[in-house]
Amino acid sequence: MKVALTGASGFVGRYVLAELSRMQIKIVAVTRDARKLLFLPPCVHVVERDISLPWQNCFAQMGYPDVLIHLAWDGLPNYRALHHFDTELPRQYRFLENLVNAGLSSVFVAGTCLEYGMQSGPLSEDIRPCPTNPYGYAKDALRQQLEFLKTIKNFNLVWARLFYMYGEGQSGNSLYSMLKEAILRGDNSFNMSGGEQLRDYLPVAEVAREIVRFALSGLDVGTVNICSGKPISIRRLVEQWLVDNNWEITLNLGYYPYPDYEPMAFWGDIAKNAGIFKGK
Amino acid sequence: MKVALTGASGFVGRYVLAELSRMQIKIVAVTRDARKLLFLPPCVHVVERDISLPWQNCFAQMGYPDVLIHLAWDGLPNYRALHHFDTELPRQYRFLENLVNAGLSSVFVAGTCLEYGMQSGPLSEDIRPCPTNPYGYAKDALRQQLEFLKTIKNFNLVWARLFYMYGEGQSGNSLYSMLKEAILRGDNSFNMSGGEQLRDYLPVAEVAREIVRFALSGLDVGTVNICSGKPISIRRLVEQWLVDNNWEITLNLGYYPYPDYEPMAFWGDIAKNAGIFKGK
Repeated sequence: MKVALTGASGFVGRYVLAELSRMQIKIVAVTRDARKLLFLPPCVHVVERDISLPWQNCFAQMGYPDVLIHLAWDGLPNYRALHHFDTELPRQYRFLENLVNAGLSSVFVAGTCLEYGMQSGPLSEDIRPCPTNPYGYAKDALRQQLEFLKTIKNFNLVWARLFYMYGEGQSGNSLYSMLKEAILRGDNSFNMSGGEQLRDYLPVAEVAREIVRFALSGLDVGTVNICSGKPISIRRLVEQWLVDNNWEITLNLGYYPYPDYEPMAFWGDIAKNAGIFKGK
Repeated sequence: MKVALTGASGFVGRYVLAELSRMQIKIVAVTRDARKLLFLPPCVHVVERDISLPWQNCFAQMGYPDVLIHLAWDGLPNYRALHHFDTELPRQYRFLENLVNAGLSSVFVAGTCLEYGMQSGPLSEDIRPCPTNPYGYAKDALRQQLEFLKTIKNFNLVWARLFYMYGEGQSGNSLYSMLKEAILRGDNSFNMSGGEQLRDYLPVAEVAREIVRFALSGLDVGTVNICSGKPISIRRLVEQWLVDNNWEITLNLGYYPYPDYEPMAFWGDIAKNAGIFKGK
């Protein structure tokens, strides 16, 4: 079993790399900057390459992997940039199409809960996506294009809609990182929104385990949520982080307005995900 | 007033060209093959160019038109070819984005009723598209991308969903052309499906008048159906063509199965279209 991994030096990618390494699976880690991936175990082979550039023979140069775990996506966290569809979408599709045409048999791609758009409540995979920003739109478009590709090419596809996550190494503008920075600076208070909005959060290490489980399953499950299935208010979430880490700071709730580009309350429906491995 | 027209030598394009010429409007007709556009009135300037290829300075070379009527689309009638999104979609977007960035202020684009997908009954512009083939998907995707482009660029957009049409000069595999060929061959009978499916048909000359009306309006109406608003069975439609043209042939109804990629009964809702010019 050989697994190729793109976005290997990203926030989620590093946890996936750790999880695969722990299982002593042969890994081909694709990254734009190999200097970001040092001190790796011998089961990891690094290929330095920007997958957004044309890449003939990519399947061969990645060592004919059995599975691809595709996490790379450029241009975040600016969800509203047209870059996501005018540049990233066609390049991503070309990369994946090349691999499938060359013989790749199993593809795992990281989607996003933003594909659902402004829909509230528990979101299951069978409701129609309705993305409202270019990032969610482009991810949903890539998924549809891969579904069309499946009508003429035979390959397994897992399209995993990742909900929110947190953990060490997350980008500086994430809630978790901003809170930690405030603690390290010794701030007395932490400015937040009202905090009543309901979201779906998982620790990133748990997300990585889910990703690896689906990617190695050899199943063709289509779209699946990777989420907790349990709504939690942002306020409660931050309070838990404070308790778990023995941090102390006053939460200045209501300082920021609620974001207008997300519904007030949405979380993932876990039923399909939970059913797939039941009894296995 | 100067109007640029792509797809000028296509079935609809020729009728639009005739309609604009009749109004003595300055026209820049863009075509891949200028030999297809002979004997034109002096108000028409032909630019021979394949818009799917990179084209710097396209706005200047098209003579800084006030409006673009964009009908060009490659790869029909094979609705299921992946070409529509893997090649045509990014090229079309790039062409339109270049023009808008260069200063084009009004864009009319031909969409399709296939954007609606497998939805039955009267279809209005405010229902969510759900395309099920790559052609309908790519058109709908282009529309969404232009809507995102509008969030950062100021231009008028008319996205006209064309329903079915018929007329002289239509491609050989259209129902109208096949019927006419059978008549000209002197066939006794004409093989058809059951003919009970309900569709929405307009004569192509009427579609061309609608296109010109919207394109010259200077309005930013977004998506609008161009259709009759009246469902008609394929059987009744063909019977009307026979009467109108004094043709005689026996209809062999039920010879072909109904197509599985279209709903049994769908037609356009004309309310939004009819309301736009009310009282003008």
